[in-house]
Amino acid sequence: MSELQSFDWSGWSEHELKRVDLAMQQWLKPFEPQALYESMSHALLGGGKRLRPLLCLAAREAMREFDGAKPRADLEQAALRAACALEMVHAYSLVHDDMPCMDNDVLRRGLPTVHVKFGESMALLCGDALQTLAFEVITPEPQEVSEAIQARLCRILSRAAGLQGMCGGQAIDLSSVGLRLTQAQLELMHAKKTGALLRASVLMGAACSHLEDSRWQSCAQFLTTFAEKLGLAFQVIDDVLDVVSDAKTLGKTPGKDALNDKPNFVALLGLEGARDYAMGLYDEALDQLSQSGLKQTQALGALAALVVHRKS
Amino acid sequence: MSELQSFDWSGWSEHELKRVDLAMQQWLKPFEPQALYESMSHALLGGGKRLRPLLCLAAREAMREFDGAKPRADLEQAALRAACALEMVHAYSLVHDDMPCMDNDVLRRGLPTVHVKFGESMALLCGDALQTLAFEVITPEPQEVSEAIQARLCRILSRAAGLQGMCGGQAIDLSSVGLRLTQAQLELMHAKKTGALLRASVLMGAACSHLEDSRWQSCAQFLTTFAEKLGLAFQVIDDVLDVVSDAKTLGKTPGKDALNDKPNFVALLGLEGARDYAMGLYDEALDQLSQSGLKQTQALGALAALVVHRKS
Repeated sequence: MSELQSFDWSGWSEHELKRVDLAMQQWLKPFEPQALYESMSHALLGGGKRLRPLLCLAAREAMREFDGAKPRADLEQAALRAACALEMVHAYSLVHDDMPCMDNDVLRRGLPTVHVKFGESMALLCGDALQTLAFEVITPEPQEVSEAIQARLCRILSRAAGLQGMCGGQAIDLSSVGLRLTQAQLELMHAKKTGALLRASVLMGAACSHLEDSRWQSCAQFLTTFAEKLGLAFQVIDDVLDVVSDAKTLGKTPGKDALNDKPNFVALLGLEGARDYAMGLYDEALDQLSQSGLKQTQALGALAALVVHRKS
Repeated sequence: MSELQSFDWSGWSEHELKRVDLAMQQWLKPFEPQALYESMSHALLGGGKRLRPLLCLAAREAMREFDGAKPRADLEQAALRAACALEMVHAYSLVHDDMPCMDNDVLRRGLPTVHVKFGESMALLCGDALQTLAFEVITPEPQEVSEAIQARLCRILSRAAGLQGMCGGQAIDLSSVGLRLTQAQLELMHAKKTGALLRASVLMGAACSHLEDSRWQSCAQFLTTFAEKLGLAFQVIDDVLDVVSDAKTLGKTPGKDALNDKPNFVALLGLEGARDYAMGLYDEALDQLSQSGLKQTQALGALAALVVHRKS
C-alpha cells in the first residue's frame, strides 16, 4: 500500500478515536434513572473497533478537497456528530441482537452483554434509546450544523438502519435459519444487515462537505462502491473469524453460525475460498479509491486493510 | 364547548384520519421478508385512536394563519409526514412495551399483540424498524419538504422519544415498581413516558408553518403548555380507565397497575379525586387555547374533550 507511506495512520486514527470517544461521553452524560444511563454507557463506551465512525471521518477527509479555502468548523462538527450517531446505531443493534429472543449471547467485547448485566427489559430500552440518541446527535441547533446537512444525515441514516437496511437484513437472517441460501441471497442479506450501515458511514462522511462542486457526485459514487465492496469483505472475514478464532481473541462467542445452522460464506466457499474472496473484494475496493481521483483517501485505504486483516 | 358550534369535528377528523391511514399504507408497502412487513403492518395499521397524528394536524390547523396568502402544499405534506411519524413511534413503543420482558401483554386493540402473533424476535425487530421508519418518513427528498423543516421535525421527535422523553420515562417506570412515588415524581415520570410524545405531536404540527412571524413563538408557547396539560390529563384518565373499564371496552388487559403494584393517580387521589384532577387539567388546557389568540383551535379543543371523555 504505497499510499500509506506518506500518511500517519496510527497518528490519524488515535486522534480521531479520541475525538469520537470524547464526543460520545459528552452526548451521553449521566442522567436519571441510573440503570438506563449505565446500560447505554456500557453498550456505547465499552470499547469496540469504532469502524463506522472511522469510516465516516475518513470519508470526510477524502471529500475535504471540496471545502474551499476557508476552514469549515461546521462540517467538522457535522462529521463528528455523524460518526457518533453511526456508532450509536451499531451499538443499539448489538444490544438487541444479543438478547435471549435473538442470538442469546452472554459475551460481547469480552464483557457481559447488556441484558446479562442489566436485565432484559433494560436492554430493550437501552437499545431503543440508543437508536433515538443517534438522531438526536445529528439534529443539534442550526447554528452548530446547517439544517440542510442535518436533514441529509437523517435521510441517509434512517434508510440504512431501517426496513430497507439493517432491520430488514436482520429479519431476512431470522427467516433464513436452516435454509440453504445461494451466494446471491446470502450477499443480499448481508448487504442489508451489515453492509447498509457501513455504506451509510462513508456516505454520511461524504455528505459533510461542500456539495456544489460538479465533481462531487462522481466522487461520492466511487466512495459508495468502495463501501459496498468493503462491507461485503467485512462480512466474509466475519464468517472466517467465526470458524478460526477463539472467544478470547474474538471477544464474543465463536462458532455460533455452524451451531445455529446459519448460512455463511465459509460453508459456501470453504475457508480458503472465503479468504480469497475477501482479498479480491479488498483489491476492488482500493481500485475504486484510485479511480475516484480523490487525493486524501489514505485513511479509507488503511481502514479497508484493517477490515480484511483483523483478528477479531 | 361553544367553539365546536361552528366547527364540524366529525367531518374534520374523518377526513384527517383517512389521509393519515392512506399515507401510512403508502409509506409501509409490502416488502420482503413478509414477516417483518406483516408485523409492522399489524402494529401500525391495526387501528387505534390516532391521537398523536390528530393532535399534530390540529396544531397545524391552528398555526395555518401564519402561512400567508399562497396555499402551502409543502407544509401540508410536512404535517402529514410528521403525523405518521408520531404514530410510528407510538406503535413501536407499544410493541416493545407488550413484550414478555416488559408488560407481557397478550391483547392490544382487541387483537393479539405482535410478539404473540409473530414471535418475540420479530416483535423486537418490528419495533426497531418502526422507530427508524418514523425518521425516514420525515426526511424525504428536499423537493417534498424543505430541509429546514425536516431537521426541525427530527430534532423535536428524537428529543421526545429518547432518553429525555419516552424511553427515559419508561425506564423510570421500570425502576419504580413497588415504590411509593409522590405525586410530583409520578407526574415527572408521565411527563416523559407519555407526555413528551403528546407535546411533540403539537410542536411538530406547529413547526409545519411559516415561522418568520414574530407572534409565532408566543403562540407556540401557548400550544406547548396546552399539550402539557392535556398529556397529564390523558395519563390520569388512563389510570381511571384501568380501574373502571373491562378488557372488551379497553381493548387491552385492565387492572394491571394494581396487580403489578405500579404507582398511579387513582391510588394517590382516589377515583373521584383523579377524575376531578383530569377535568381541572382539561379546563386549564382550553384556557391556553383562548389565551393564544389563535383563531383555528377548534380541532385542538375537540381533541382535548376526546381525551378526558374517552371510554378506552
